Amino acid sequence: MTEVTRTLARFVVDHAPAAVPPTLYHEATRALVNWMGCAIGSADHETVERAVRALSPCFGPPAASLFGRTERVDMLHAALLNGISSHVLDYDDTHARAVHPSAPVWPALLALAQSHPVSGRQLLHAFVLGVEVECRVGLSVFPEHYEIGWHITGTAGVFGAAAAAGKLLGLSEREMCWALGIAATQSSGLREMFGSMCKSLHPGRAAQGGLTAALLARAGFTSSEQAIEAKRGFAHVMSTRFDPDVITARLGETWELSNNMYKPFACGLVIHAVIDGCIQLAVEHDLVPEAIESVDLVVSPLVLELTGKLRPASGLEGKFSVYHAAASALIHRAGGEPQFSDACVAAHDVCALRSRVTATVDPTVRKTEAHVRVRLRDGRLLERHVEHALGTLPRPMSDADLEDKFRAQLTPRFTAETASAILEACWSIGGASDAGASIDAAAR
Amino acid sequence: MTEVTRTLARFVVDHAPAAVPPTLYHEATRALVNWMGCAIGSADHETVERAVRALSPCFGPPAASLFGRTERVDMLHAALLNGISSHVLDYDDTHARAVHPSAPVWPALLALAQSHPVSGRQLLHAFVLGVEVECRVGLSVFPEHYEIGWHITGTAGVFGAAAAAGKLLGLSEREMCWALGIAATQSSGLREMFGSMCKSLHPGRAAQGGLTAALLARAGFTSSEQAIEAKRGFAHVMSTRFDPDVITARLGETWELSNNMYKPFACGLVIHAVIDGCIQLAVEHDLVPEAIESVDLVVSPLVLELTGKLRPASGLEGKFSVYHAAASALIHRAGGEPQFSDACVAAHDVCALRSRVTATVDPTVRKTEAHVRVRLRDGRLLERHVEHALGTLPRPMSDADLEDKFRAQLTPRFTAETASAILEACWSIGGASDAGASIDAAAR
Repeated sequence: MTEVTRTLARFVVDHAPAAVPPTLYHEATRALVNWMGCAIGSADHETVERAVRALSPCFGPPAASLFGRTERVDMLHAALLNGISSHVLDYDDTHARAVHPSAPVWPALLALAQSHPVSGRQLLHAFVLGVEVECRVGLSVFPEHYEIGWHITGTAGVFGAAAAAGKLLGLSEREMCWALGIAATQSSGLREMFGSMCKSLHPGRAAQGGLTAALLARAGFTSSEQAIEAKRGFAHVMSTRFDPDVITARLGETWELSNNMYKPFACGLVIHAVIDGCIQLAVEHDLVPEAIESVDLVVSPLVLELTGKLRPASGLEGKFSVYHAAASALIHRAGGEPQFSDACVAAHDVCALRSRVTATVDPTVRKTEAHVRVRLRDGRLLERHVEHALGTLPRPMSDADLEDKFRAQLTPRFTAETASAILEACWSIGGASDAGASIDAAAR
Repeated sequence: MTEVTRTLARFVVDHAPAAVPPTLYHEATRALVNWMGCAIGSADHETVERAVRALSPCFGPPAASLFGRTERVDMLHAALLNGISSHVLDYDDTHARAVHPSAPVWPALLALAQSHPVSGRQLLHAFVLGVEVECRVGLSVFPEHYEIGWHITGTAGVFGAAAAAGKLLGLSEREMCWALGIAATQSSGLREMFGSMCKSLHPGRAAQGGLTAALLARAGFTSSEQAIEAKRGFAHVMSTRFDPDVITARLGETWELSNNMYKPFACGLVIHAVIDGCIQLAVEHDLVPEAIESVDLVVSPLVLELTGKLRPASGLEGKFSVYHAAASALIHRAGGEPQFSDACVAAHDVCALRSRVTATVDPTVRKTEAHVRVRLRDGRLLERHVEHALGTLPRPMSDADLEDKFRAQLTPRFTAETASAILEACWSIGGASDAGASIDAAAR
């Protein structure tokens, strides 16, 4: 058996910043922009409020930011709470095959960077490596591990957070093995929790557990050094399938961060193509709802299976109604959180148009594809075939798209100036001499 | 399917202190004495030192004791670190079939009680309930869950800590379901870590995670309310076997705490009978090593399999040498940590006698049984058949035995007066009006 854990540890420890392709530094920066908007945008979510209320008596010295909030807390609680806020709306990034890469890794890194000064380049480098570790660990047991019932963003994310934080702390190869081992033995998170506040607890705990692992390892706290591959280690205990080559093959040659996707819309991926097509038609033809006779959608069967709710009664239910998503996108030309608010779902104009939306399934249509047909009262028929929804790998969000999303997430709680300042700090992070201070100054 | 999680939650929430048999209050007090000696006795262990060094930058307000140390920390770190120290030597209590009951539960309860005043009776009651929950959850998936590779003290312990802390916090039935769910989704700990510092991290994390779960639940942080029994919940994801009846049948009628055992000797259970017999003979005949010609042991095959090391080279290796255990017990009339120190293992008199010890296996001898035969130089043969080692259920340690163990654990770092004061606070905890303050005052 290959020494999987040690090979992975050695790769992270020995890897030099110059060996990362420049495009990946830009991708890491895009991930930061997207992650930060999610974290700040949801920082006052009820899930975060309750966690802060519960844990505040235990907060340590104010060393790290809760992005989008006024409190400053110790780095372990910052990792936990920023991890929760960034995932709570499921609006964070998604690897093409498995985990949400940023939610476990950025909170650990940013919390640590605020008390352990590092350059922006070091920070981005550590992020790229952390994502590589969590994705490879996750993919080595995927999909069986997920099908058993593990929430892979939590269970694999803790490895990514440990590796990234350990890289910033300059761990030795042996200490990195321990960090991965301490991560492995904290790996947890059940899919049964989907639909409850615990879903976003998972990346939070992964970030906190991974950072804890790196801190403990640096202090000489030992673990098994074969934690991933051993008979009673992570892979065999937590999955029925394990392919060690997925972890060790072509390390440093392929990069999982290049398979990262950002969500333009605040709902499940399966209705993104419909929203995308509706916005395109509404903008191009400057549509008003009164002009619309009917809307016909042709979608993948999965779309109606997951989001077939005809009459949603709340903002949350709106996320499970392709009819609502189409109507609100045509009227508001957007698919952000405001379009999935209780108010929007109950709005008269949205309800009226929603009742004129129909959807039919076509098994040949992929889940990120859709046909949108809008019949106008003047008799015209507008059609749009969205082959790949915005945000998928074939059609990634542009930097400008990410900025628009970020600004929308910060509205109305923060001013446009604040949003600009944080955006500027994020986009320029690669050149920062003290990355933590730079982000902190902008986000205060 | 029975509503397992809800049934368990309702039981804990509704249970009245008066419904616990008085003998169990005494057993809970004995568990406290034993646990506290383990925690204080190992509070300066390297494992604890490293964890404290790693995490101290994140310590919150000094609300709770690290027993046996001078630091005071926030309750979550107290739960973690006291959990580590109390298990680090594997000298804590053992349920007859599964978990180490105290190490995940006492740290959570005592940390909480220091900032949430409760009577000693409430504290003991919550402990009894927490032990019931962790044992039933553990036994419902035992032994398959353990055989897969899960360290059940960590994976089931988190439920016990959550239930016990939740009881002290006065959670409602629904909140208790959430606490158990938040516990379930943090359940972790791999047996691959045995032999490393992570083994004692497991009960520490269980204590901290369980306390976190109770605090979050009280603040309205939601989880699945079928976390134990659901298709993608704890039992089905983490075990190939699940018997829900083990959790729900005869709740409140049988008590797992009555199956709790305390270790008189600082090593694995399998060599306790040998040590026990050697001490008995040494005391009764006032033996000196020079008078001993040879020692013959007849033991279970398991004894030589696990502890057959002929020439141990360190204190730790001494724990895996029945020969060393016998020799040091005959000379020192004890089997505590000092008998498994590097110095004792290297001592001339011990080495000399160790070389005159032989052991033979007999498959009819149980693992807690032994025959000890000491041949003296004057020709006499002394024999002792230990049918049940001291500390097993048929032959429990007396309260006086527990006191002796406690005092030995505190020697030489603490004075006899300090030991007496803490013992007094523990034995009288049932009558304390503010249990946390009472323990805290004695342990400072």
